[in-house]
Amino acid sequence: MGFLEKLEERQRKTKAILCVGLDPDVEKMPRNIATGPHPLYEFCRRIVEATAEYAAAFKPNLAFFESTGSDGIQQLERLMADIPNDIPVIIDAKRGDIGNTARHYAEFVFGHLGGDAATVNPFLGRDSLEPFFDYPDKVPFVLCLTSNPGSADIQMVASGEQRIYQKIILLLRRFKKPCGLVVGARHAQLLENVRSMANDWPILIPGVGAQGGELEASVRAGTADGTCPAVVNVSRAVIYASTDDGDFAEAAAAKARWYAEEMAKALTGGKPKS
Amino acid sequence: MGFLEKLEERQRKTKAILCVGLDPDVEKMPRNIATGPHPLYEFCRRIVEATAEYAAAFKPNLAFFESTGSDGIQQLERLMADIPNDIPVIIDAKRGDIGNTARHYAEFVFGHLGGDAATVNPFLGRDSLEPFFDYPDKVPFVLCLTSNPGSADIQMVASGEQRIYQKIILLLRRFKKPCGLVVGARHAQLLENVRSMANDWPILIPGVGAQGGELEASVRAGTADGTCPAVVNVSRAVIYASTDDGDFAEAAAAKARWYAEEMAKALTGGKPKS
Repeated sequence: MGFLEKLEERQRKTKAILCVGLDPDVEKMPRNIATGPHPLYEFCRRIVEATAEYAAAFKPNLAFFESTGSDGIQQLERLMADIPNDIPVIIDAKRGDIGNTARHYAEFVFGHLGGDAATVNPFLGRDSLEPFFDYPDKVPFVLCLTSNPGSADIQMVASGEQRIYQKIILLLRRFKKPCGLVVGARHAQLLENVRSMANDWPILIPGVGAQGGELEASVRAGTADGTCPAVVNVSRAVIYASTDDGDFAEAAAAKARWYAEEMAKALTGGKPKS
Repeated sequence: MGFLEKLEERQRKTKAILCVGLDPDVEKMPRNIATGPHPLYEFCRRIVEATAEYAAAFKPNLAFFESTGSDGIQQLERLMADIPNDIPVIIDAKRGDIGNTARHYAEFVFGHLGGDAATVNPFLGRDSLEPFFDYPDKVPFVLCLTSNPGSADIQMVASGEQRIYQKIILLLRRFKKPCGLVVGARHAQLLENVRSMANDWPILIPGVGAQGGELEASVRAGTADGTCPAVVNVSRAVIYASTDDGDFAEAAAAKARWYAEEMAKALTGGKPKS
């Protein structure tokens, strides 16, 4: 099943548009796990198990696995095999290069790891994106507008009538294939603008939770009031809800449930709890 | 010893500014190696051994190792231990992300792999670059202007008086730390423009060889006629000079020597052989 169908089915089942970000950091996880064998795998495995019923998608962040080299990547390979098949996985890769190099990156995220989708960096332009469109059923989520201060340096730069992030959307439309966008939650008004340009493409919205983006406004703008697909990613606020060895997984599940419910309320127009 | 000192010493010793790009592809390497154990490692080890005396630097391209996952990264880890200590290594990573994620990427390339330098993608702006400046003696090479068709889509876009690639250079100057730039060889005139804005920063120039960039013009523009540091990368034209199991390493060495000599001539003003 392709990413889009998998996501649609999952969202129908869970009523949720929560994406749980897997950023395993031994400095932040419970001590017993951090000091035990395969801490990245063990931590994420427990988080996945505990939060799966509230998750529309999971998003493993490659940086946290590759920082320990082949050992970390091996733990990710194990984790990928454990994630239930009906939950779409977005590999947070932010890769971008040209020609044969780009093809090898696409092969890593879609082929070797088996991700259903992956984040991609568009800085090298059209030909750097092509290989990520060559996998039927897989979807690239192209970085469009992030919520960090540095988004002003390139993404928000205006040229003529358009800003760079708008030019990227126009470029992607030329591929005439399913495509996703990454748009930070701190830009709820800009999210509306992206939504209006991006047809019915899925949008991945990071920046809620620890990064402080507004949940309700993001959900409404990102989904065009529930009519278009989006997933809202929360990483740290869910997975590090508790650092206690005894209850960290339960605490993560409770947080995931809370976020999923708030997102569902925002979608159906109910008032979120403050 | 820091990257810049290592490079300077190496360039004095070899008289060369050739960077040998390590893009190991089992589809292209000699058959005996491709079908044997640890092909990425074995192929690169032989190439490194054969070309070291002509190489001012080596540039392993992460995509070609990670496309086979932990096994490929493990072969890269072995390779890194084999590269002579006095030859600087630029990890071709093109990573770019924010906050703690960026710190983990920097830790991978500079800490875990022990690269002396690494290529970095600036699309997420100032705060995404910071962690790569936090390693004393290590140097980030920031993507500035590439030579592929897609460089028109973002890098060459004009805003007011400046194009995006020029804005990136101005942004990098604010860090007041040693920094490198990646500028494609097909832009020899633009290379002059970059050189004039980039103080005495080192420039990594890909696109010579298989990608067809002009060697002499690139060398002169990139080094400001030999007064500033640069390395000119050649990957495929050196490492796949022959695909014969018997002589591929010798063929690569001969090609590396040819490129190194042509670059040395361009630097001293001699006419390159056609």
